[in-house]
Amino acid sequence: MIQNDLFLKALKGETVERPPVWMMRQAGRYLPDFMKLKAKYDFFTRCQTPELATEITIMPIDQIGTDAAILFSDILVVLQAMNIEVEMKPEVGPWIPNPIRSEKELNEVIVPDASVALDYVIKAIHMTKQELNNRVPLIGFAGSPWTLLCYAVQGQGSKNFDKAKAFCFSQPELAHRLLQMITDTTIDYLKAKVAAGVDAVQLFDSWGGLLSPDDYNIFSLPYIRQIVSALKDEIPVIVFGKGCWFALHDMAQTGASALGVDWTCTARNARYLSGGQITLQGNFDPSRLLSPIPTIKSEVKKMIDGFGKDRYIVNLGHGILPNIPVSHAQAFVDAVKEYKA
Amino acid sequence: MIQNDLFLKALKGETVERPPVWMMRQAGRYLPDFMKLKAKYDFFTRCQTPELATEITIMPIDQIGTDAAILFSDILVVLQAMNIEVEMKPEVGPWIPNPIRSEKELNEVIVPDASVALDYVIKAIHMTKQELNNRVPLIGFAGSPWTLLCYAVQGQGSKNFDKAKAFCFSQPELAHRLLQMITDTTIDYLKAKVAAGVDAVQLFDSWGGLLSPDDYNIFSLPYIRQIVSALKDEIPVIVFGKGCWFALHDMAQTGASALGVDWTCTARNARYLSGGQITLQGNFDPSRLLSPIPTIKSEVKKMIDGFGKDRYIVNLGHGILPNIPVSHAQAFVDAVKEYKA
Repeated sequence: MIQNDLFLKALKGETVERPPVWMMRQAGRYLPDFMKLKAKYDFFTRCQTPELATEITIMPIDQIGTDAAILFSDILVVLQAMNIEVEMKPEVGPWIPNPIRSEKELNEVIVPDASVALDYVIKAIHMTKQELNNRVPLIGFAGSPWTLLCYAVQGQGSKNFDKAKAFCFSQPELAHRLLQMITDTTIDYLKAKVAAGVDAVQLFDSWGGLLSPDDYNIFSLPYIRQIVSALKDEIPVIVFGKGCWFALHDMAQTGASALGVDWTCTARNARYLSGGQITLQGNFDPSRLLSPIPTIKSEVKKMIDGFGKDRYIVNLGHGILPNIPVSHAQAFVDAVKEYKA
Repeated sequence: MIQNDLFLKALKGETVERPPVWMMRQAGRYLPDFMKLKAKYDFFTRCQTPELATEITIMPIDQIGTDAAILFSDILVVLQAMNIEVEMKPEVGPWIPNPIRSEKELNEVIVPDASVALDYVIKAIHMTKQELNNRVPLIGFAGSPWTLLCYAVQGQGSKNFDKAKAFCFSQPELAHRLLQMITDTTIDYLKAKVAAGVDAVQLFDSWGGLLSPDDYNIFSLPYIRQIVSALKDEIPVIVFGKGCWFALHDMAQTGASALGVDWTCTARNARYLSGGQITLQGNFDPSRLLSPIPTIKSEVKKMIDGFGKDRYIVNLGHGILPNIPVSHAQAFVDAVKEYKA
């Protein structure tokens, strides 16, 4: 049994003494020990070496005391498994040398046996679960099919992913073929993670907010729905769509256990839009962790008062920024642990 | 009298036979004639030469037939007038060599006599009004103080303007001093534009959507409110905040004649959030102009049906993209002119 089960209780909607807290990208660049590993090993080496992924995953549990661990990995490993080459270029970020722009490139894409192609992730889960020794739950994650398509087609990060959107709007049949292949791979991948022992999974729709609600219902939501349907009877699923306030109502109908919200959506709006019953997760502006510590603490208190302590998981509204002082991340987590209604 | 006064009627909330249409950045890089001028003159030369600004402003009126002209210029000329150097770097975009990060740089910033410092804009307005010869109204514009602060502090474009937000959250007194100086300059600047003959003004809060609603109410809205208050009795003001769906209610209380909305906000949500009385402007996804022409036409029809023909100005949800075929921009405008309820 998991000793600190606050996170799992919140996912089930059970009453808790205080909400659980974790931070997106908590195992990352604001931690000095992470930076030491970053200096020695390149990005995908860190993802692909179970010992390193485990060490990084555990860091924020030992050092900051969050209530859940999230496996150190990257959403783009799924594209790699699908025979789409992905590099991590310094200064540039993700880089796909042969982006998918036509049927020719699409024909090279495969739906792999995910547990074989991504066996290093499975090994990292086994190793992390052992190291965690049931202290806190372990979250596995994947990108949403739409968000992965964005990278696969655009070929790199982008403000508006215009090439990805042009692909969808001018060649929708190809787009849906790719989205379905990503969906099938993701379901297989997440089921392998569940079998390996993760306690919950989160889907990141990082670029869902670039779509209009109509287009979201065409290119993103149906695939998220498939994934949640395939997993929800086995494990709690959290769906986080950045900028996807407009989809909270439909997301709440997918069978997900919780929805992530970003900081542009107030607690009141998020409860209203999601229907008021489902567990919500978020939504501190990551930049707000640059405020003085007393401000961080009072803002966290205000945020929990807004969402309420139950059916709520404290988190940031997006990943923690690299320039956040560790003491500020610590203050964020401490403020949750000190919470009194 | 303006011959085609659809746009002004929509701003007043009057009944029209069809909604007016214009496109943000309509005088821009999707037009081959614009690209010819771009090859000959650098960015700020085009802004600072009244003959060129006039020629560019008129282009979409003659070539695409939009119902309003918007003066070719840039929001960053206001920073230049305030003694903040701004360059336009190829591949990079806006570039501020000495961004404002402390009191030292802030002390160099001035509140100029805008009609003197930006006399080239005033001249361009006189010239454009003459060329337009009352065919359609002319819109003047400015960036919101928050959006201008983003550039002044960050020093360049950014996905999250983390340095600008860090400045506001860690040195709020300096941030408010800068915001007030931008506000005072902007009011003076827009009043000079009104005196020169523009028929409406639009405030662009391009980066308002990066703030939480609470922070929006601290760092953006109060300054927008000051500007609208200072102008609304002289001229209709449109406020457009990208990603600012959460602020539509408060924006509608500023006295603005219309609010711009982006494509993540459905007509239904925009009417609900803004209170259902104020004129709305938007919100076609600029990437959707890459769809086949018949799709563009049916989507425009659907959009107008959603907003309703009255108290509505057809526009994109953000600036037109450079890679849009002229025929697709034309189809967008034509679809509005062909609209039958």
